[in-house]
Amino acid sequence: MTINIFEQDLDKGPANFIPQTPLGFLDWAAHTYPEKTAVIHGERSFTYREFRQRCLRLASALSKRGIGKGDTVSVMAPNSPPMLEAHYGVPMTGAVLNALNFRLDAETIGFILGHGEARVLITDREFSAVIREALGTLDHDILVIDINDPLAPEGERLGETDYESFLDQGDPAFEWVMPDDEWQAICLNYTSGTTGNPKGVVYHHRGAYQNAMGAVVVSGLNRDSVYLWTLPMFHCNGWCYTWGVTAVGGTHVCLRQMDPAQVFALTKEHRVTTMCGAPIVLNMLVHAPDDVKTTFDQTVDTFTGGAAPPSAVIAGMERMGFRVTHLYGLTESYGPATVCAWQDQWNELGLEDRSSKMARQGVRYPTLFAQSIKDPDSMEDVPADGETMGELMLRSNTVMKGYLKNKAATDEAFRGGWYHTGDLGVLHEDGYVEIKDRSKDVIISGGENISSLEIEETLYKHPAIMEAAVVARSDEKWGEVPCAFVTLKPDSGDVAAADIITFCRDHMAHFKAPKLIVFGPLPKTSTGKIQKFALREQAENI
Amino acid sequence: MTINIFEQDLDKGPANFIPQTPLGFLDWAAHTYPEKTAVIHGERSFTYREFRQRCLRLASALSKRGIGKGDTVSVMAPNSPPMLEAHYGVPMTGAVLNALNFRLDAETIGFILGHGEARVLITDREFSAVIREALGTLDHDILVIDINDPLAPEGERLGETDYESFLDQGDPAFEWVMPDDEWQAICLNYTSGTTGNPKGVVYHHRGAYQNAMGAVVVSGLNRDSVYLWTLPMFHCNGWCYTWGVTAVGGTHVCLRQMDPAQVFALTKEHRVTTMCGAPIVLNMLVHAPDDVKTTFDQTVDTFTGGAAPPSAVIAGMERMGFRVTHLYGLTESYGPATVCAWQDQWNELGLEDRSSKMARQGVRYPTLFAQSIKDPDSMEDVPADGETMGELMLRSNTVMKGYLKNKAATDEAFRGGWYHTGDLGVLHEDGYVEIKDRSKDVIISGGENISSLEIEETLYKHPAIMEAAVVARSDEKWGEVPCAFVTLKPDSGDVAAADIITFCRDHMAHFKAPKLIVFGPLPKTSTGKIQKFALREQAENI
Repeated sequence: MTINIFEQDLDKGPANFIPQTPLGFLDWAAHTYPEKTAVIHGERSFTYREFRQRCLRLASALSKRGIGKGDTVSVMAPNSPPMLEAHYGVPMTGAVLNALNFRLDAETIGFILGHGEARVLITDREFSAVIREALGTLDHDILVIDINDPLAPEGERLGETDYESFLDQGDPAFEWVMPDDEWQAICLNYTSGTTGNPKGVVYHHRGAYQNAMGAVVVSGLNRDSVYLWTLPMFHCNGWCYTWGVTAVGGTHVCLRQMDPAQVFALTKEHRVTTMCGAPIVLNMLVHAPDDVKTTFDQTVDTFTGGAAPPSAVIAGMERMGFRVTHLYGLTESYGPATVCAWQDQWNELGLEDRSSKMARQGVRYPTLFAQSIKDPDSMEDVPADGETMGELMLRSNTVMKGYLKNKAATDEAFRGGWYHTGDLGVLHEDGYVEIKDRSKDVIISGGENISSLEIEETLYKHPAIMEAAVVARSDEKWGEVPCAFVTLKPDSGDVAAADIITFCRDHMAHFKAPKLIVFGPLPKTSTGKIQKFALREQAENI
Repeated sequence: MTINIFEQDLDKGPANFIPQTPLGFLDWAAHTYPEKTAVIHGERSFTYREFRQRCLRLASALSKRGIGKGDTVSVMAPNSPPMLEAHYGVPMTGAVLNALNFRLDAETIGFILGHGEARVLITDREFSAVIREALGTLDHDILVIDINDPLAPEGERLGETDYESFLDQGDPAFEWVMPDDEWQAICLNYTSGTTGNPKGVVYHHRGAYQNAMGAVVVSGLNRDSVYLWTLPMFHCNGWCYTWGVTAVGGTHVCLRQMDPAQVFALTKEHRVTTMCGAPIVLNMLVHAPDDVKTTFDQTVDTFTGGAAPPSAVIAGMERMGFRVTHLYGLTESYGPATVCAWQDQWNELGLEDRSSKMARQGVRYPTLFAQSIKDPDSMEDVPADGETMGELMLRSNTVMKGYLKNKAATDEAFRGGWYHTGDLGVLHEDGYVEIKDRSKDVIISGGENISSLEIEETLYKHPAIMEAAVVARSDEKWGEVPCAFVTLKPDSGDVAAADIITFCRDHMAHFKAPKLIVFGPLPKTSTGKIQKFALREQAENI
């Protein structure tokens, strides 16, 4: 093959080829809007100049402790400045940020800190009890830094220093470390899948940059944007809005926990323009007491995902001044991968028809290269008939590098050259995707993924249980809740459902425990496989 | 060096690593908004489905003629559907688009077609006379395709086929060719520099994708955007808006030539939201006859570059409903590289103060990695004092691959690992860059770059001229015009200025000819170098 004229003496160099990284957004914002408010947290706020300096101090202080490329820094914190700063300060050393789900139990946290080989843990005192227990299971050294957030409840000090003192050790003029290559890891996010132990999803700088830009385009972020942190930042790095809001010089408004009264108050006070959250978050706002529902002039663009927003929620949100858009994605796709893009002709539809359009997962995010509903065996596309089921598959620069130290799972997820989401759905005539079922037995409750297999494994540890199967049951408040079907051992005598639930809560994160226990024989196929489909139907009809 | 855990079994594959290319935007828009109006041209319009099909037909028909990777396809056309379609259809074959400046003379066009090794030329009949002459100078075969635009003036047919018949030969189901690598060339744009022959600036898919996303973010494009093509598409591929408008499913409104009456009429009729153009374009709108100045409800975001917009133009535009933002860039930076980002505190300034803020080139585009005003000898940054002059230098994925077949010029442009813009300026205390002078002797007239050296070379061909030097002179209408200083040969007798201007117009593009000829001795340094600085002062005071 001959080299053409466009391939001669036109090589990459430092002037024209630079690794893409979302870290540069902070430099841009601090340069362009140094005195603009970057972060608000209660009574406290930071300008972009201050925000950047705090991130550089964090990076510098971590570097002084020897943290750099290939190291993991874990953070256990709610939506607060330290968690946001870690999204810059940690990768600015070359290291990898591991934002922890603060709802997890000690055992799982311990597993993650061990598996991810965390060298530093920055932890909010609200979670000291769980963290103390998790640290007890660790068999490697770890630097623990306590966050003393004045807005946090009291909690034990676990570390050798606190976050603000640690920042004081850092140099605000630190020269941050560009990734050698945009494929370099930036974040490590654990997901609960179908197996008991969570899998570590590895993000790279290229994908984080891309999906942050996608968030800007999809949600129309600009310098006037005020983003309220109703979505936990540990969820796919806040769907990459941690970086996207900064990319335009918008304002981050932190929120430690989802409290409707605070959401309304902050929305009015700071003129919030944009927020994200699972349908449960929207539901809490709709059902908030009337006296906390302040009115405000702006319309708040509200992006929801994790489950389809029900029509009552859409209507309720609209009445209060929120415009809802449905997104879909997974930890493996840096958060949002699809968007239910609005069509002008939907303006004329009634609420139910409009809601059923809006409940679909939609078309690809502008930064997603391709999505397709395929027959997972033949890898052929299904027809756009709204009926033929297939598996949703993705191809994109915004798909993870893979699972950490788990080549088998990575290979399985990427078989055939596509990322297999494990979600089953159809392609409608108008090109919109709709998820109908999950091939993985994951229950999404309050925006959290719960592995039914993990619950089953816990149930199987109960001395009286012989067989167990867990499925999702629709729930008005939580979207879904786990419903367990069990058969008892012949000699076990009577066991109360409440006892089994208590047993589960003692052995796993509380939110994962089944809400309902059904006793009786399990329906099975001729080959002895439990028919979860039948159980799902049964669960809905209880 | 040991490999860390994030570098093991986490490799690139087809599911998670895809070349970035702006071509995918068209697939996205046609999938998401198939029936939405993509392109308007006079009475004609195309939906996104049709627009995409036309691009695929073009790609298919070109492929059938053997056009593919490494080949050049040139287009000589005003802002019209074929020029826009070429931005997709040509690179969809793997080939490189060479959009020609239709104001150039036959000799220069001939040089470009030869140097760029164009295998196909798609040409609007308005330019048949120039093209016929240019083709006469070519010594390689070229497929010529005529565009019969019903909105175009009559012109000779030069080719073997016409554009619409050529499209008919193409297959709308053509599977377009992804670039093998995002570094692959996508466009070839000739710039007039300081040398007589234009240089061929090579763009890659990665940079085109990036700067198109930059255009979306900077100008807040979304699916409701209606973009009026007042900026020629041949200028850095319309500053990458050719791709950016499509990336959000906006509407392209074509405009063959800058006619204020049409701009106002189209702005009202199609509810235009966004446009771009040199200050001369804005000036023409401000000074348009009152009876063509329609009023409209929306505010039109208007981006200008090439020279700073004068305060009278800013004020005049604002009165008519246009909000002006100043951008700066070069062909080498895919068009815009900086933006004079608005600051809230400017709202309180009077017109003159506000205009002087807005006249600055500003801060970096969100997709520009770095800009710096440096001492070109030491490569040290100048202080942010608004006084110390240095050269503006850029580092970005949105900087060209280099100059085609011109390693010396490429190396010179990239020396020290930065792209040297050749523009001299200062860095203000607020971090905004302001260009004060050009180190290259380029005159920007009506948004077009004119090389003073090229004019000098033409002047030197005149039998009576002994010495010549050309500098820019400020001009209210054109921004700048070329002003020539000449000394005559002793035996030449009297020569009229008008004769010299006519001579220039006969030997180069009309717009490049000097507007003013000054006779007399040229000021020189002790080493005999002409003092252009003194001539610039003199030119301003005439």
